[in-house]
Amino acid sequence: MQRIVVLAGGIGGARFLRGLKSAVPDADITVIGNTGDDIHLFGLKVCPDLDTVMYTLGGGIHEEQGWGRAGESFAVKEELAAYGVGPEWFGLGDRDFATHIVRTQMLGAGYPLSAVTEALCARWQPGVRLLPMSDDRVETHVMIDDPDGEDGARKAVHFQEYWVRLRAGVPAHAIVPVGAEQAKPAPGVLEAVAAADVILFPPSNPVVSIGTVLAVPGIREAVAGASAPVVGLSPIVGGSPVRGMADKVLAAVGVESTAAAVARHYGSGLLDGWLVDTVDAGAVAEVEAAGIPCRSVPLMMTDTQATAAMAAQALALAEEVRA
Amino acid sequence: MQRIVVLAGGIGGARFLRGLKSAVPDADITVIGNTGDDIHLFGLKVCPDLDTVMYTLGGGIHEEQGWGRAGESFAVKEELAAYGVGPEWFGLGDRDFATHIVRTQMLGAGYPLSAVTEALCARWQPGVRLLPMSDDRVETHVMIDDPDGEDGARKAVHFQEYWVRLRAGVPAHAIVPVGAEQAKPAPGVLEAVAAADVILFPPSNPVVSIGTVLAVPGIREAVAGASAPVVGLSPIVGGSPVRGMADKVLAAVGVESTAAAVARHYGSGLLDGWLVDTVDAGAVAEVEAAGIPCRSVPLMMTDTQATAAMAAQALALAEEVRA
Repeated sequence: MQRIVVLAGGIGGARFLRGLKSAVPDADITVIGNTGDDIHLFGLKVCPDLDTVMYTLGGGIHEEQGWGRAGESFAVKEELAAYGVGPEWFGLGDRDFATHIVRTQMLGAGYPLSAVTEALCARWQPGVRLLPMSDDRVETHVMIDDPDGEDGARKAVHFQEYWVRLRAGVPAHAIVPVGAEQAKPAPGVLEAVAAADVILFPPSNPVVSIGTVLAVPGIREAVAGASAPVVGLSPIVGGSPVRGMADKVLAAVGVESTAAAVARHYGSGLLDGWLVDTVDAGAVAEVEAAGIPCRSVPLMMTDTQATAAMAAQALALAEEVRA
Repeated sequence: MQRIVVLAGGIGGARFLRGLKSAVPDADITVIGNTGDDIHLFGLKVCPDLDTVMYTLGGGIHEEQGWGRAGESFAVKEELAAYGVGPEWFGLGDRDFATHIVRTQMLGAGYPLSAVTEALCARWQPGVRLLPMSDDRVETHVMIDDPDGEDGARKAVHFQEYWVRLRAGVPAHAIVPVGAEQAKPAPGVLEAVAAADVILFPPSNPVVSIGTVLAVPGIREAVAGASAPVVGLSPIVGGSPVRGMADKVLAAVGVESTAAAVARHYGSGLLDGWLVDTVDAGAVAEVEAAGIPCRSVPLMMTDTQATAAMAAQALALAEEVRA
């Protein structure tokens, strides 16, 4: 049975995983999920990326939206607003609240996030082993201009505030995964990487999703040193993010929004293969010049079938570079 | 302005308070609420009696039910059940959950329950000053037979488990307000009692509601020593509780379910007056023989008008005994 490890963020990673499961239903898939966008809201621990993977693969996701629960209602949120308790910009529905209540209760009882995630997945049966990148708290903060400060003053806001409230509409000067340096990989993460036959980077955000996973000391080294080939899929197609606002945070780390620039950002020390979209076929030579075998294939996750084809292409490239 | 202090439990106390406000709309009313039935559910702090008073006086109560919110939905509870997380026997609705989320978040941030209650009441505007009896944790436990133990073995269950799950359907051998001995009256409680013109015991449960309030060291003494007359209304009419299952817990403390026995249970050291229902007119002499002035008046809280009349009778008796 093929052992596949996938580093995943939220929506993009979750949809890719659905395609991957469809392409290789018998594979043993371990997902190392980003927890840098976790946030405490209303005293509850919210893990947006883990939940998006769990709900998507478990059949509970709001399909059109890509995050949150299907058939959602918002009574709790309305009541919290009536109490004057915010933030109002983060859309937590009633069903979703239950997940955060269970998680917060278990964490309060002393269970690590990895054990909590396993318990939640016992209900959702995502068909993959979902591991948080770390049981330690890591919170991605974004440095933005401080409109209330002196000229040139900056302030840090939580990634969710930058992403959801501000819709990445202000310049991001730096992306800081607070706590990452002190974080340890969650139990099973390094073991899964070491035992993998293939390691995949889905078309997730290379900075705030996969970049944050790699920022946990030990994970980047394990991936770079793994015997398995590491193949990534470009989240940038034709100079723009396939979805989301990856270009905004790429700018913050000085990386161009091109399929080739993202490949070079990961680098040949990490990547053994890279897929770009057919519209970026011209970038193949540039990526290969950087020492990374590259192919151009359709990379739009329009449906599960198209996504499964992408996953199959990634696995094929992995086989090719292994040989 | 007449200063009235009311010791209150849940539904009975809340409905009495609505009548009292209607009878004397200009009075300055302080409610000392029972917190012995507070319970931690799903990691959240739930204060059923405080909330019943707050929702009833603030216009948010589920009228027929007497507790919980009007227009309630149950998405969170259904989801928790889907996770296998209980208890399922405690009916928390989505709107109600928001109250407990706000409360738990504030307590976690270091605010005492009294400050949290004040903050919640800023929304509900109950028209009374609602104080928890104590900021310290007190939990009423009930000793019942342990069906899994040896013959005669007993076990303690939380009051809510006895009351809601078991519906007081098994013998209660003792009622224990765990933590009461170490609890301190909340800020403002003793001051309100000392400054009161009248102190009222509504037809609340004399054991697990008013009895628990009085079990906080200092409160019984303050009420007994107050210059204000203390007048109570019998929760027992014609040998049965007006509502609820007060007879079950009265038995546990060795008190008969009669209007006179409850008056003697409080005693003339505490009570300066007692109202029994007209059907219990025969008990007036017995109560007065115990040194407690007593009148028989209609005590069924069928609507706000009838309840206002009861409150007016209690205030009239207070005036009479003061003279």
